[in-house]
Amino acid sequence: MGDIIDGKRVASDINAQTKIEVETLKKRGIVPTLVVVIVGEDNASKIYVRNKHRKAVQLGINSVVRQLPAETTQDELLAVIAEYNQDPTVHALMVQSPLPAQIDEPAITRAISPVKDVDGFHPINVGKLLTNAQLNFPVSCTPKGIMSMLRAYNVPLEGAHAVIVGRSNIVGRPMAALLLNANATVTIVHHHSGDLSQYTKTADILVVATGIAHLIKRGDVKPGATVIDVGMDRDENGKLTGDVDFDGVKDVAGLITPVPGGVGPMTIATLLQQTVELAKWSD
Amino acid sequence: MGDIIDGKRVASDINAQTKIEVETLKKRGIVPTLVVVIVGEDNASKIYVRNKHRKAVQLGINSVVRQLPAETTQDELLAVIAEYNQDPTVHALMVQSPLPAQIDEPAITRAISPVKDVDGFHPINVGKLLTNAQLNFPVSCTPKGIMSMLRAYNVPLEGAHAVIVGRSNIVGRPMAALLLNANATVTIVHHHSGDLSQYTKTADILVVATGIAHLIKRGDVKPGATVIDVGMDRDENGKLTGDVDFDGVKDVAGLITPVPGGVGPMTIATLLQQTVELAKWSD
Repeated sequence: MGDIIDGKRVASDINAQTKIEVETLKKRGIVPTLVVVIVGEDNASKIYVRNKHRKAVQLGINSVVRQLPAETTQDELLAVIAEYNQDPTVHALMVQSPLPAQIDEPAITRAISPVKDVDGFHPINVGKLLTNAQLNFPVSCTPKGIMSMLRAYNVPLEGAHAVIVGRSNIVGRPMAALLLNANATVTIVHHHSGDLSQYTKTADILVVATGIAHLIKRGDVKPGATVIDVGMDRDENGKLTGDVDFDGVKDVAGLITPVPGGVGPMTIATLLQQTVELAKWSD
Repeated sequence: MGDIIDGKRVASDINAQTKIEVETLKKRGIVPTLVVVIVGEDNASKIYVRNKHRKAVQLGINSVVRQLPAETTQDELLAVIAEYNQDPTVHALMVQSPLPAQIDEPAITRAISPVKDVDGFHPINVGKLLTNAQLNFPVSCTPKGIMSMLRAYNVPLEGAHAVIVGRSNIVGRPMAALLLNANATVTIVHHHSGDLSQYTKTADILVVATGIAHLIKRGDVKPGATVIDVGMDRDENGKLTGDVDFDGVKDVAGLITPVPGGVGPMTIATLLQQTVELAKWSD
């Protein structure tokens, strides 16, 4: 049976490091500050934002949650972003997704100052990632967290065949760039790819981010592969589960992330790690 | 035997269209203007810039070649860029590569106004490409030209397995993003990938951009594949040749680009096409 990647443990190690970095910055008079803007009353978003806030406070980060009404206009939201862009005490700024229908989300992403873009979604930061710029810049937190997990478990990256299932801007595309920059051979498959198995079976590292519960089964995985499951799905009983059929795959994989307790805990830890990095880089 | 992709013909069709668009813009009082900055006396660059200039003039584009001395400093070059960035009569601006050793080339790339970035190398344009932004923005000319060739020959892209050999910022990486946005399954291989053949043999579309003469041989290609050779190499006799062993591969490929006469003619045609697009978008 494959070993289970303990995302909670890796996240906890990152958080411990973040806490030390926060203390160091505070001694230099810098209080790392994260602003999360939330528009409307989406319950899942509110829970997620509250979890980020609590953990940020635990680590000594100044966390500001700015709640705006569901009927906020594009211009009103842009004005709020401009306010935080200009505020030198704010190092990290994000707008929680999803946004109400009247908001043009890509335009909001482009309005956030690239140097405060803690989500790493601004095209200039994405472009620095794809061109492997030798600069400091933020990167989308879920794939960046996955890189931290792979490194924590000493997964060989150079020359490995990494297959990414899903091509979202939040996970699949930046994940491909990160793995390419780490000298992996990278394949991106998606819903136009036909039989996924022909690709996934050749993967040394398989990252699955589709939102389709149990899409990846035992026969889709190469023996000994490292399997990273980004899914946060509900099974037929409403139980949280992943894009990978964990019970079927765990015996064939060399390393595998569970859901929950795998990628999930890494995302907030990486967001707070990156908040501190932005504060350092702004100095 | 596979069919040969006639890059000269596709380029000629694009140039004819560009000429019409230039005339239309001129009637509206807009003279599409391209500025190419060249630093120093690299002979290959000078020939290439002269070819661009001649073709631009043929198509009615206002082409300006700004020759700077080899000892130009970073600040002097940045000042020249700033001058053209601010000049509303200039629509397209590029700095010819290679640059002398005292110049920080990535910083020059980032200094060019993204709306005049006819090379498509600015990270914000690369990021728009990787995130498949539904906006007008320039894209690196060689891969954009390859997309035009694939479309001209009705090569099916959706669900096709595209394998790109080489991961440069000029070709491999933007090529991967373009093909992914066109719904291909995309694999990027490079010099850390070990045995390339295991990947290239599964390609429906194989794009090779390595600078290694005849790297890809008959046994590396799937029968019927479309093979795009970006190489401009010299063989042992000093003759121009490609990264693909054309004579060996042409019988197994379904479609193949020759060198010369394949990708080469497309790059200048695409640069001038994109000059006109930038002029239109600026209006």
